Amino acid sequence: MDHKALLQQVADGSVTPDEALLRLKAAPFEDLGFANVDTHRHLRQGCHEVIYGAGKTPPQIAGIVEVMGNVNNILITRLSQEAADELNGRLNITYDPVSKIAVANPQKIENPLGSVVIASGGTSDLSVCEEAAITAETLGSKVTRLYDVGVAGLHRLLSRLDILQSARVVVAVAGMEGALASVVGGLVSCPVIAVPTSVGYGANFGGVAALLTMLNSCASGVSVVNIDNGFGGGYLAHRINRLEGCP
Amino acid sequence: MDHKALLQQVADGSVTPDEALLRLKAAPFEDLGFANVDTHRHLRQGCHEVIYGAGKTPPQIAGIVEVMGNVNNILITRLSQEAADELNGRLNITYDPVSKIAVANPQKIENPLGSVVIASGGTSDLSVCEEAAITAETLGSKVTRLYDVGVAGLHRLLSRLDILQSARVVVAVAGMEGALASVVGGLVSCPVIAVPTSVGYGANFGGVAALLTMLNSCASGVSVVNIDNGFGGGYLAHRINRLEGCP
Amino acid sequence: MDHKALLQQVADGSVTPDEALLRLKAAPFEDLGFANVDTHRHLRQGCHEVIYGAGKTPPQIAGIVEVMGNVNNILITRLSQEAADELNGRLNITYDPVSKIAVANPQKIENPLGSVVIASGGTSDLSVCEEAAITAETLGSKVTRLYDVGVAGLHRLLSRLDILQSARVVVAVAGMEGALASVVGGLVSCPVIAVPTSVGYGANFGGVAALLTMLNSCASGVSVVNIDNGFGGGYLAHRINRLEGCP
Amino acid sequence: MDHKALLQQVADGSVTPDEALLRLKAAPFEDLGFANVDTHRHLRQGCHEVIYGAGKTPPQIAGIVEVMGNVNNILITRLSQEAADELNGRLNITYDPVSKIAVANPQKIENPLGSVVIASGGTSDLSVCEEAAITAETLGSKVTRLYDVGVAGLHRLLSRLDILQSARVVVAVAGMEGALASVVGGLVSCPVIAVPTSVGYGANFGGVAALLTMLNSCASGVSVVNIDNGFGGGYLAHRINRLEGCP
Amino acid sequence: MDHKALLQQVADGSVTPDEALLRLKAAPFEDLGFANVDTHRHLRQGCHEVIYGAGKTPPQIAGIVEVMGNVNNILITRLSQEAADELNGRLNITYDPVSKIAVANPQKIENPLGSVVIASGGTSDLSVCEEAAITAETLGSKVTRLYDVGVAGLHRLLSRLDILQSARVVVAVAGMEGALASVVGGLVSCPVIAVPTSVGYGANFGGVAALLTMLNSCASGVSVVNIDNGFGGGYLAHRINRLEGCP
Amino acid sequence: MDHKALLQQVADGSVTPDEALLRLKAAPFEDLGFANVDTHRHLRQGCHEVIYGAGKTPPQIAGIVEVMGNVNNILITRLSQEAADELNGRLNITYDPVSKIAVANPQKIENPLGSVVIASGGTSDLSVCEEAAITAETLGSKVTRLYDVGVAGLHRLLSRLDILQSARVVVAVAGMEGALASVVGGLVSCPVIAVPTSVGYGANFGGVAALLTMLNSCASGVSVVNIDNGFGGGYLAHRINRLEGCP
Amino acid sequence: MDHKALLQQVADGSVTPDEALLRLKAAPFEDLGFANVDTHRHLRQGCHEVIYGAGKTPPQIAGIVEVMGNVNNILITRLSQEAADELNGRLNITYDPVSKIAVANPQKIENPLGSVVIASGGTSDLSVCEEAAITAETLGSKVTRLYDVGVAGLHRLLSRLDILQSARVVVAVAGMEGALASVVGGLVSCPVIAVPTSVGYGANFGGVAALLTMLNSCASGVSVVNIDNGFGGGYLAHRINRLEGCP
Amino acid sequence: MDHKALLQQVADGSVTPDEALLRLKAAPFEDLGFANVDTHRHLRQGCHEVIYGAGKTPPQIAGIVEVMGNVNNILITRLSQEAADELNGRLNITYDPVSKIAVANPQKIENPLGSVVIASGGTSDLSVCEEAAITAETLGSKVTRLYDVGVAGLHRLLSRLDILQSARVVVAVAGMEGALASVVGGLVSCPVIAVPTSVGYGANFGGVAALLTMLNSCASGVSVVNIDNGFGGGYLAHRINRLEGCP
Repeated sequence: MDHKALLQQVADGSVTPDEALLRLKAAPFEDLGFANVDTHRHLRQGCHEVIYGAGKTPPQIAGIVEVMGNVNNILITRLSQEAADELNGRLNITYDPVSKIAVANPQKIENPLGSVVIASGGTSDLSVCEEAAITAETLGSKVTRLYDVGVAGLHRLLSRLDILQSARVVVAVAGMEGALASVVGGLVSCPVIAVPTSVGYGANFGGVAALLTMLNSCASGVSVVNIDNGFGGGYLAHRINRLEGCP
Repeated sequence: MDHKALLQQVADGSVTPDEALLRLKAAPFEDLGFANVDTHRHLRQGCHEVIYGAGKTPPQIAGIVEVMGNVNNILITRLSQEAADELNGRLNITYDPVSKIAVANPQKIENPLGSVVIASGGTSDLSVCEEAAITAETLGSKVTRLYDVGVAGLHRLLSRLDILQSARVVVAVAGMEGALASVVGGLVSCPVIAVPTSVGYGANFGGVAALLTMLNSCASGVSVVNIDNGFGGGYLAHRINRLEGCP
Repeated sequence: MDHKALLQQVADGSVTPDEALLRLKAAPFEDLGFANVDTHRHLRQGCHEVIYGAGKTPPQIAGIVEVMGNVNNILITRLSQEAADELNGRLNITYDPVSKIAVANPQKIENPLGSVVIASGGTSDLSVCEEAAITAETLGSKVTRLYDVGVAGLHRLLSRLDILQSARVVVAVAGMEGALASVVGGLVSCPVIAVPTSVGYGANFGGVAALLTMLNSCASGVSVVNIDNGFGGGYLAHRINRLEGCP
Repeated sequence: MDHKALLQQVADGSVTPDEALLRLKAAPFEDLGFANVDTHRHLRQGCHEVIYGAGKTPPQIAGIVEVMGNVNNILITRLSQEAADELNGRLNITYDPVSKIAVANPQKIENPLGSVVIASGGTSDLSVCEEAAITAETLGSKVTRLYDVGVAGLHRLLSRLDILQSARVVVAVAGMEGALASVVGGLVSCPVIAVPTSVGYGANFGGVAALLTMLNSCASGVSVVNIDNGFGGGYLAHRINRLEGCP
Repeated sequence: MDHKALLQQVADGSVTPDEALLRLKAAPFEDLGFANVDTHRHLRQGCHEVIYGAGKTPPQIAGIVEVMGNVNNILITRLSQEAADELNGRLNITYDPVSKIAVANPQKIENPLGSVVIASGGTSDLSVCEEAAITAETLGSKVTRLYDVGVAGLHRLLSRLDILQSARVVVAVAGMEGALASVVGGLVSCPVIAVPTSVGYGANFGGVAALLTMLNSCASGVSVVNIDNGFGGGYLAHRINRLEGCP
Repeated sequence: MDHKALLQQVADGSVTPDEALLRLKAAPFEDLGFANVDTHRHLRQGCHEVIYGAGKTPPQIAGIVEVMGNVNNILITRLSQEAADELNGRLNITYDPVSKIAVANPQKIENPLGSVVIASGGTSDLSVCEEAAITAETLGSKVTRLYDVGVAGLHRLLSRLDILQSARVVVAVAGMEGALASVVGGLVSCPVIAVPTSVGYGANFGGVAALLTMLNSCASGVSVVNIDNGFGGGYLAHRINRLEGCP
Repeated sequence: MDHKALLQQVADGSVTPDEALLRLKAAPFEDLGFANVDTHRHLRQGCHEVIYGAGKTPPQIAGIVEVMGNVNNILITRLSQEAADELNGRLNITYDPVSKIAVANPQKIENPLGSVVIASGGTSDLSVCEEAAITAETLGSKVTRLYDVGVAGLHRLLSRLDILQSARVVVAVAGMEGALASVVGGLVSCPVIAVPTSVGYGANFGGVAALLTMLNSCASGVSVVNIDNGFGGGYLAHRINRLEGCP
Repeated sequence: MDHKALLQQVADGSVTPDEALLRLKAAPFEDLGFANVDTHRHLRQGCHEVIYGAGKTPPQIAGIVEVMGNVNNILITRLSQEAADELNGRLNITYDPVSKIAVANPQKIENPLGSVVIASGGTSDLSVCEEAAITAETLGSKVTRLYDVGVAGLHRLLSRLDILQSARVVVAVAGMEGALASVVGGLVSCPVIAVPTSVGYGANFGGVAALLTMLNSCASGVSVVNIDNGFGGGYLAHRINRLEGCP
């Protein structure tokens, strides 16, 4: 809503004060610039609305997608294979069973932005890694995968230093003891987003061990998202990656 | 160490293979480009080495600063007033008692970079906020303080939307229940770094309540650092803020 | 039991001291006014006895309902669809599969009392919300549902301020980080009952994150019930809502 | 701000669209009715602004009180004796060392409202109880104290049933195992606010044992505030107590 | 082994020192009086060896029972219905599906000892209660069941005071908030064994809430066993109940 | 109060129904046999009222003792040396600085009852041990101390098997890992009360490690009281020890 | 890579400095001796690469084994029966369903090394014990099993002292309260590796109780691995067992 | 005690059976070979008895040392400077204020054994490191200190690979996130003992973060001792280091 135009119309007499009041009340926060942002901002900035698929029925998801109209590359996360199959007949979607991400109205990103590196400790973290990777890619970032470079065999990580150090942002995904984030944090100068995973057993406590490790990282420049939150890591990585240079 | 120059000297015969081998072993990782980075990278990129003052004696701190030579704006965090007084005679430092940060070889930053906003829930979080703010400022970022805008009186935050939305990165500092990070995360499109503080009592558990709130934020684009880790928040904010535009 | 009448009968000789002693022992606490209250108080005050269905067999539930006689609108909570089906042939019940609440001897409430608002953060909290809503409604309160107004999109909540502010009591239901309770608590002047839900993952710890957020709310006037305890929230909301004015 | 009047002025031409836009932006949330409420609502409803004294300096507190002007009975909680002494010369305050509550601009409440009962398990909970009691009294409620009626000697509680059952709201304060809330909850029909205290030792874990007991109460109609949060209990009790009758 | 007899034989020459040494080594701890006790003590004192059925295969259980020979009333706890069915053809057992206890070589106890009261908060705790009850009964104690006397309806408990107060030992079984143990502890003068159960949800944390309540009981004379450990409660109750009078 | 006598007086006409009603109301629970028990029962059974000294002022303690009149051997636990010194001029007390127990109106127990053994793991647990020992002794039990017999040097414990096995009840006090309770539980046939202590460091978590060890004891017949609760252990030991033989 | 040979070639002129630089960068860490070690060290020292089977598909596992070539006795841990069956047709493996360990390219160890004793508390810990035992055996250690010697029947353990005391290293496996490690630690002079298991219930918290017990062991010379980590215990035991004597 | 000699004396008639019985009872466990071991074993094997100084008074400590007689190099851990000063006049001790270890009857170890490396993450862990180092040294091991090689600057650690890889056992001491143990574990083939320290803040939870990291280490061959337990780490390192070669 264009405040000034509305007020001009009131001044012009083409809109009555009562009618203007009604419009303001009907969408009281559009004026403030954050209500519409939820729709327009994402189109403008490359981040479309994201649908958290867990706990929603296929018809609910389809309804939301339909309301969003002709938006491309709508992310639907945590979607089961069954739900994806059910949606498939109704929507135009692609589905990745590893990350459990579907993309509605998929369209190839021609020129992906910058450089996001997803580093992971082991092959068991694959689904979380791919959730991060596909999220960032779908939003428009260029993603490099650096999997299975855990600290138990440090040379695997060190032999890829050039890749790590050329990233604009690194997403470090690790379960077990989660030491990867600290080691990566000490090797790069860009922001590092740590994603603890629930991979492990015993005193891992469903990812708490990795989470605490990452929060207490002795390396600076590391921040953390929720356990198994690959989406959150990939989304934030894209937010950082797409930043334009300082004016 | 300049690898190629050394190899050239071996080819020239001015350095024997044995001598070259010795030099490679003596500093084996300098060749790889990350050993020296600890020194050079920071000078080059605006992030100097940071000294964690807690648990170090003033003489130890002074020794480290002296080794670092004529580097400007060396951050010394978590420094007590007493230690600062003791250092004062020996080093050229400024000291801020609220954030407990000292800066050695202080020098005014002429053109601070970009825009970091530090938002806080209440006045009790002040020391953590200032730790974040002074860290980012000393590293070279332009910082705007938006304090006491907690969610219990939402209008205080909403009336500053323009400031929030013009940030390149927001550091959201909050104790108690830490809801500020979620609310800010829903209002801006830039990266948000959440810093939980130990302000509170009872089931706050020394900051755990705010930490969990922030990790579980329903808003995307939010990541978290350790409880009371204002330095970590400010440091990472600067890392993100100083990013140049995507090529 | 009428103490004085009994004592009078002893004085009259129509009841012997031994007989009176027996009667006192047989129902020792009826005299005190709280034994019978369990039956009479609820009828008188609008809160009928409630049956916690989980862990009871359909025959046990049917037995309890039958003992309660012709009481209307008996709440049976946490009842599975299977148990409801089994009860259906034996009792006159309605059953809502979302909230898993059955109502035995259902009867329309003609003039529901006051105003209870149930606000929720997302659609995944629906079953807890409905447990609260149907509980309060069945007990006799007028309930307004305000769902999916979580803080990640604050304008959704703010656009309904009139509804929130006209409530006599608000039940704020939220999972994830549970920030809704604090934000609502800062916007209204009536009592707020916060119901944390187990919706979320990772460091949500089955609702603990939301629980701690709510217990540490920086907004005054907020109290908390157990995780996923929609019934408890709705029941207490009715208790508050039905209060008559101060004498 | 009167939206319609402003729009009328725009229609009249007495205010230009630009000027109107400026006014809307300058106080965007005043229009919505909740920005000013923070001031007016409390005066109107009997709940003045409350100052959390912990972590604020006496000059800060005095400054806030002075800004609030001639408001009576301003609560200042968690204030140390030393801070109270320092404030005493500057403000007109009364101070209670047990609850650590000061009241600025104290004025006798002539006709306290309704009936709030504060029940406690033991004498060690006294400071939390008094924080609740003085909070509710200062806000305008009539408070009855029922102390040292813990469940280890049940007859003490049962002999006061008449007091308990005549309350409009009960605040049950208990440390150790916190069973008082459940027992009280089973005896009354009004809302019960449970306040766990940190009184105890060992596996009490600073009040966690009592907190969990209260959250899991098998009695309906009980809700919980933070550990040692006497203020929160008293404040909410007053909010409930002052409710007018249902229309 | 009879030490003195053996030494006498050595003195007699009927046993050589080497042979005696061998016998001492072969069963070194029989001499000390605790190796054989595992077998003889229980027969002598009424507590037979108990078999923890969980995690043992039916053939393993049958093997142990067979080794124990003609001992009567051998308790087998935590036995599934399936395992019981399988054992049934091979051993002479009775099986109770509620407590999941089997008794091998069952024999009626003619004169059960003393008086153990099992009190419980609700009907959901039934299996734990029965585990305690059948354990104590099978070991030889007289058991009185006092079920569904939780503190939410205190009169139910108070109306049975005579039963409670005539016990030699009370086992208080409760889930949810576990307040029953404290209330019972305040009403009786005999030892009280509290058994927390995992009945409940949310912040009950699988019985932790009840466990902490019971450990922090403000009533003296209460001790606690593990969550859901009905067997432990019943076993200890029998140990206490069977005590003879002080000499 | 003698119910029957009162009723007889009503029948006799020597007491009017109104007067009788008044008496019943004035002490409504005396009739039921548990109100007065708090006073009479203890005198009769050897357990006098106990005063928890922590958090009470010396004048409060003195007041309670004076109300209790000429009762001998009143236990006052958790009393600081300073408080004891202050009480000393006002009451006739003995004070033990190790256990921090004072005894008011001390009188030698001529024939202590039965046999309570207090076993401890190390010398650091001394104050908790003595709290248990002096509690049981003051209540009338005969106590044998078996200190510093921790499992790290098992022979120390095994060489005292005769003492352990002749006990009517054992109180096993241990910090660190608390394994003593399990080992003792496997060696004796009498009830064992385990008292975890907060002695230890690191992952001991203030006694939690020992507490969990004891709750999970693989030996039957062991129950647990709160961390550092020597009083609770000694009190319960006396309750068990004083039991008369089964009728 | 042979550093010196390369440098000699540079000196010889047979390799140019640029070419040498490229080779150093291409495999920068091979020079340091730890990249290849992952392959060669294990063959040389008796510890082959180990494959963690959980979370890997049979084809992935087969692929890794095939890459490892003709290495004998490759351990594959945490492998389900189904996965083992599937692998069986493709690889030459033996499979033990109790420990869930498969060994690829199995070959009898002719002269197992030294002496590792695996002691366990009960029969329920069998799978963890066997994981430790088979791991150590497959790596080349001689293993003695000492099962079901828990502290509840101490004589069972004490009667095997000779076996325990002849070990070079003991692996103590225990669930429930985990006291076995402390008792063993007090009886032997060799290193003790404690393996907590998740066997137990209630306040065992999935092995946390045993873990804490073991970490807090009052016996010196005990260290701990993760809950249920039989592999880790057996692997470390072998590392210690195979140590040659001090030079 | 020499069993056989005693039995021979019985056979000879020089000792009566009763006298022999008495002697067996007086020291029943000496026969079994572990009672005396506490004294003799340590002398024989290089590990003298160790005195845990915390919670013992200087006179108690002096008493224990005096009983131990002319044993050299008796370790006294966790001794305050004050206690050391007080002991100094009475015993022949050396004292190290960093590790808080005193050594009574100190004597230089002429030929320290093998090679123990103590690696630490930062300078704040110094006291724990030195507790480990001095413990191992005093027991007779040769110790190499490798301090301040944390993973935030990985090159520091990698440049010392030769030292790490020549160790017979490594003690890895780290606070904060404790990742050092995993990185070291991946670089060496000898046993690694991880010692978590309480250095850190916030979600470090007094060392829990480092403890969990170490327990979940993805590197094999790592075991863990209690938080801040430098003594335990050094003691176990010596036990392993002193192992002779396999027969």
